[in-house]
Order: sequence, then structure tokens, then C-alpha cells
Amino acid sequence: MELKPTKPLSGFIELSPVAQRFVDECAARMLGILRVAGFSNLDLPAIERAEVLTDKDNWDEIETQMFLFQKGDTKMGLRYDGTVGLSRYVAGHLNDLTFPFRASQFSKRYRGERAQRGRYREFYQMDMDIMGINTLSTNYDAEIISVIQRTLNSVSEFIGDNYVRIGSRPFWDALFDYLGLNADQKKNIFILIDKRDKMGDEDFAEGLSDVLKNEKLENEIKSVFVTGYKNFVNKSDNLDAAITELNDFMKVLQDFGVKNAEIDLSITRGLAYYTGLVFEFKLSSFPELGTAAGGGRYANLSEKFSKTKIIGVGAAIGFSRIFVSLVESGKIDLEKFDASIVAAVLPMGNSSVPFAMNVVNALRDKNIATTVYLDADKKFKNQIEYADKIKTKYSLIIGEDEVSSQQIMVKNMATGDQEKMSLADTIKLLKTV
Amino acid sequence: MELKPTKPLSGFIELSPVAQRFVDECAARMLGILRVAGFSNLDLPAIERAEVLTDKDNWDEIETQMFLFQKGDTKMGLRYDGTVGLSRYVAGHLNDLTFPFRASQFSKRYRGERAQRGRYREFYQMDMDIMGINTLSTNYDAEIISVIQRTLNSVSEFIGDNYVRIGSRPFWDALFDYLGLNADQKKNIFILIDKRDKMGDEDFAEGLSDVLKNEKLENEIKSVFVTGYKNFVNKSDNLDAAITELNDFMKVLQDFGVKNAEIDLSITRGLAYYTGLVFEFKLSSFPELGTAAGGGRYANLSEKFSKTKIIGVGAAIGFSRIFVSLVESGKIDLEKFDASIVAAVLPMGNSSVPFAMNVVNALRDKNIATTVYLDADKKFKNQIEYADKIKTKYSLIIGEDEVSSQQIMVKNMATGDQEKMSLADTIKLLKTV
Repeated sequence: MELKPTKPLSGFIELSPVAQRFVDECAARMLGILRVAGFSNLDLPAIERAEVLTDKDNWDEIETQMFLFQKGDTKMGLRYDGTVGLSRYVAGHLNDLTFPFRASQFSKRYRGERAQRGRYREFYQMDMDIMGINTLSTNYDAEIISVIQRTLNSVSEFIGDNYVRIGSRPFWDALFDYLGLNADQKKNIFILIDKRDKMGDEDFAEGLSDVLKNEKLENEIKSVFVTGYKNFVNKSDNLDAAITELNDFMKVLQDFGVKNAEIDLSITRGLAYYTGLVFEFKLSSFPELGTAAGGGRYANLSEKFSKTKIIGVGAAIGFSRIFVSLVESGKIDLEKFDASIVAAVLPMGNSSVPFAMNVVNALRDKNIATTVYLDADKKFKNQIEYADKIKTKYSLIIGEDEVSSQQIMVKNMATGDQEKMSLADTIKLLKTV
Repeated sequence: MELKPTKPLSGFIELSPVAQRFVDECAARMLGILRVAGFSNLDLPAIERAEVLTDKDNWDEIETQMFLFQKGDTKMGLRYDGTVGLSRYVAGHLNDLTFPFRASQFSKRYRGERAQRGRYREFYQMDMDIMGINTLSTNYDAEIISVIQRTLNSVSEFIGDNYVRIGSRPFWDALFDYLGLNADQKKNIFILIDKRDKMGDEDFAEGLSDVLKNEKLENEIKSVFVTGYKNFVNKSDNLDAAITELNDFMKVLQDFGVKNAEIDLSITRGLAYYTGLVFEFKLSSFPELGTAAGGGRYANLSEKFSKTKIIGVGAAIGFSRIFVSLVESGKIDLEKFDASIVAAVLPMGNSSVPFAMNVVNALRDKNIATTVYLDADKKFKNQIEYADKIKTKYSLIIGEDEVSSQQIMVKNMATGDQEKMSLADTIKLLKTV
């Protein structure tokens, strides 16, 4: 019989137990921050109707980008982000939720395209969104940024420092209007700006020239990437409003205690649904990871689900992008996650199992991480080898003598010292680990 | 524009924030038990190659049972359980893992069939498995049962008591041989036994008669459901071995501290991959939920992935089946999960926001669950209404006076009492909540 493959599909992640412990620890800390910041955790379906996931109907193309399937007459697919499902959920529960509604999500998302380096087809993102009805102060944009920074800081011992750059969609809208661009030009320039990082200055300049065919306009746009909004103060009411909003917002960020924040108008968050301020977090020590988290304000995302005006501001942390990448590239010292077991109980023979299990249950009742080797007829050598390999801190050896004296031979695996003691003293010792 | 549907697809679950908090709390407690019992948490891909998921090739039928899709030449699908992926993973990491290897999983699984009452198409199961190479003592079967009982006990305030029934696949194999059944009869009788609960005694008897056409044989099989193995002692070596194994195992369960365990040979765990002892947990207070957890020993599941003999014993807890059902049927008092916020900070006007955010950050630094109302221009009435609706324990009101005195008006939302105090005193008070 031919053996079936044991590797996961390309683009799908599976970690070693120790790496998984590291990743789980980071997730737990960050989710703790979100809970303390008053976010309600939601766990929405991974599968949505296709019409919820996309407004397009070029199914051949959509099928290459997503995981789509059809059940009966219903086209459905795996979600690629958390925001679309959240918008549907909020629109469907307007009367049950209290607004502004704070939601967090930590879930797997899916991309159907062929896997590329560092691009997973199944990946975690951690989302936080705040949604209001009809109105939502930009204070909430600052709150989201502040909370993201807190979550990233909670794991700074692994990922180092973070910084955030703030952009403005209204600025670009106002600039395009001021420069007199037509709708096609606006769209194409925006695509170029989004890809600027990847294309490099030369290709970007060429792209601008292809679209605008007007050196003066091209230079005006290029100037934004050099001197920011400087050339565009007092040029139009909309430009001034966008610039004022940005500057005021930077002061608010200070009030919120956000560190390492700067304006960067090249941040636009692509062609997505954002309508206001946008932002991206990066990690100072790991520039190669690119954007660690990003988000912004979206005013219109719920309009396809509800006639009520729902305004949101939110962000997603690229959880797998950060933590799986760091683990896989060996940049995390996993040693402190290696030892998760405090006690390995080793019964010498089946007649020792009943007392051994008393000990195991008593330790577990005290929340002491305890495993037990239950092929009890195996030799001491095999059992202690197992205890060594799983990097337990203590081995609790239980043979005939121990059963009759109801004492435990407690062996410190680091020092090799061993001592016979009562269950009560064993618990006392192991509680200090 | 026509609005898109806001309901999830049928068979998919989404909970209210408070119900989600309850479910998350239960998961956290149960996963804590597994961690303390020395299980390594694994998070495997939700999508597997179709050939990993199934040995069959009748794709039309498989497609109705699963969520399948094709990318390029590769057929793949969403997992329907945790065991198949785990077997693949373990076979692929024989040299990296220490055996016996203890793995836990808590993840979503998928069933493609049309949704029925209480049958979800996307659901959580919590798995625990122990895998050994070449040998694995039945002590490990007892360990799995003991650990499941501990996880269920950790949430007994919600789900009440549990009991476990133990069956034996070897008993049935030995009985069928003793009765001289042919391969077809064995298979068909086994299908009947598996469906016996749902069919009722009369249909079961009729089914037996259809297959066996021999009243004596039919009565022998029926007797198992009345008097257990009693009629089959000293009938064949294999029967005696199976009966002895079962009786010895019940003593081991006692040594392991397992409560409410009894032999029940009608437990067979269907047509699945089990080869040894099998078991099912039920909840005394919620018989309508059926099986809360089930599992057993499987000796051959990894043979399609590896030539090394991997023996496993494992079980899955029907997490969604239990907790989502209880929540949806209103059988859980969610009141204690209603109030997750300790402090709602209410700034009266934007000039109060900077001090308010100092307070918010200080409370969050102390792990006090704190939200803040940031449409600061809204009236006191709106803000306190919000605080009331989210059921915060305290409102921290910050207006001009508070900003200038750097004091906080702390309002106990249950009693209505309010008092001005310093930030340090506020933290002291709220830490006691």
C-alpha cells in the first residue's frame, strides 16, 4: 500500500508543540489586553455566503482568490478577513447590541491563491473594531491605535518595539480634486500609491507619467512622499480640513499615551473600504515583516446589510504573519517554552499505579502540570529517559518501597538530587516552581 | 439597492457577546485542565488533502458530506474531525515527538450535509489523544477517561454531573466469531447496533431478523442489551479475554479516581476506526444532549501514513453540541457573564479626554476591565445610559471640576452611590471587584 503524504498542504501552517506553546502564550496575552480594554470577543462563522464576501460576480477570478464551494443553489466561501462578517453580524443585531460596540476577534482566515513566501493560505488575524450608529468621534480611532499598541507591547519581549504611521484618505481625495484629476486617473493613481513600496521610485514615477502625462501634476504628487502635506496648505478647504484633522489627531494620540506615532501620507491601506484616517504599525526590530497591524475608519461597509448608518473604526493584527514568521525563521528563543511539565510521575510496575494516580490527581488538583508514564512495566531506564526528553522539572518515582511507605522519591532533573518525601511536602515543593 | 442577508448560513453558529463569554469561559477552564494534565496543544490546518480525509473515491457522495474544493489538480476539504489530521501530523513527526505523545486540540470542524436540529455544519470539538509506538498500556485508556471527567467536572456548575459507559469492540468481534457470523452479517449487525438507540427495540429486532433469519442467534445478540456479557462467559477464549479486559479495566478506572463508570456493551462508537475499548460520557441533567464525549482505542489509523506502528487512544468532547445547545435552549443563567466591565470612564466634553485617558490607561495597566465613552460631546444622560446598558460595575465621571482637581467621581452603578476620589483610591477600590 502506498503511504499517504504527511506534510500539510502548501501555505498551511503546523507548528511543533513548543512553538505552538509560544504562539498560544502570545495570543493569550494579547487577548487579555483586549478583554481588559472592554472588547467583546466574537467567534463568527468561517464560512459566509459568497454574496456577503464579495460584490463582484466574476466567479472564475473569485474562485482563484478564495476557497469557494456550492451547496445546493448556495455559493459560499471561507472568509478572507474579519470585517465583512462583523459588519453583517452588527447589521443583524442592531437592537441587541449597545453602541458604540467594541468587538474583538481572533480567528483563522483563508486566501485561495497559490501560496507565496510569507503568505499563508490559512492564517490568524486578531481584529478589534468599534462601531457606532450615525456618529463616532475620531477619539475612537485613537483608542483603537492605543489598544493595538498595548497588545503589541504585551509581547515586546519577543517582538521588540513598535511604531505607527498615520495616513489620511480624505487628504488624497482632496488633493486629487485640487489637482483636477478625473475618476479614472484618481483610481489608477491610487493603485500606484498602494504599490509604491513594492515598485520603487523609478517605476512609480513612470506609472504616474503614464497616467497623468503632465509633469507638473506628477511632481505635485511626488512631493507628498518627500515633504508631506507641506505644499498643500491653504490650497483648498478640503485639503485644509484633512490636514487639520491629521494634526489634531496627532495631539489626541499623545493624550492617549500612544508612543512612536508620526504622520505618513504614503499610508493608504490600499483599495479597501477605508474612508477616513488610516494607520499601519511596524516592528522596529523586524522591518522584513512589513506591516504588523493596520486599519482605519470605514463609514460605508455596513450599507449593503442595513439602512442604518453604521460607522466603524478597526484594525487587524497580522498574528500569523508576525508570530509564525518569527518562529519559523528561528528568531525566537523557544527554550523557556520547552519545559511545560512540572512533574512526571513514574510508576515502577503496575502495582504502583494506584498510588501513582493518587499522587497525579492530587498534583493536578493543585494546578501543578503533571504527566504520568503509564506503560508501568517498562524499565526505570526507559521511564527516566522519557522524563528527560519531555524536560520535566521533577520526576516522581514510585516503586514498591514508596507504595508501602506512602512516600515519593522526588528527583530534581536539573541537579539530579533526589529525596523521599510525603505527598504534602511534594506539593509544597512543586507549588514553588 | 437590495440589502444582503444578515443571518449566518443555516447550521452555522454565532452567539451574542454574553453567550460567547460563557462559552469562552468554559473552553478556558477545560483547556486549563488539559494543560495541567500534560497535553500539548496543537493547532492543525482546517483544510487537508481529500486523500487524507477519506479513503473512498465516490466523489459525488463525499461532496455532499464534506466541504470539498479543488485547487489546480489538488482535491482538498475541510476536516470533519481532529483525529485524521493528528494521525497525519504524528506520522510526519515521528523523530521530533516524545512518545507516548499527549496532544490536545480545540478547533472547528465541518460537516457538509444539510443542517439538522442540533447538528451544526461548523462546530467545535475538544480532543485529547495519547499515542504510543508499538505499545500503549490500557492504563492510558483510563487516563484519557479520567482527564475527560476532570474537564467536564471543571464546568459542572453549568452542566451538572457526568457518567461514563464503557464498551468493548473486541467483545463484539469475539461474539460474532463465536456465533459463526459471516463478514456481511458482522458488518450489517454492527450498523444495526450503532443505530439501535435511534431505531428503538422493535425496529432493531426486525433488523436483526432480516440479517440473521435465525431466532436463536437473534436472541443471543439481544441478550447483550439486557444482561451484558453474562451469557458468554466460558464460551470462547476470545470472549473470555474481552470480558476479562473489561472487568480489569473497571478496577483500573477506580484506581484512577473515575466516578460513575459502568460497563455498557451497547456502546460501540459506530463504524469508526476503534479497535479496543470504547466509551461515551453523558450528562445526567441533560439526557437530551446525547453523547457529550466519546472515544476509544485505535490501533490502525496511522498505517496509511507510516510503516511505524502507532497506537492511539483518544476522545473528543462535543464542545458546541454541549455548550451552544445549552445556551440556545436557555438552560444557562447568563447573568454572571453579563457584567464583564468593571469601569466605564465617561468624559464630559473633549477637554476632559486627556485626563480621562490617563485614568483609563492607569486602570488597564492594573488589569481592571475598563471601557471609555469617547463621543465626549454627548450629554451626561447619553453617557450614563451607555454605562447602564453595558452593565459596568462603576462609572467614572470626569468633567471640568474633576480635571482641575485631578479627582474622579466614582459612581457605584448597583447602589447609585457616588464619591469623589483620587486615582490611587479609585484603583484600590476597583481592584477589590
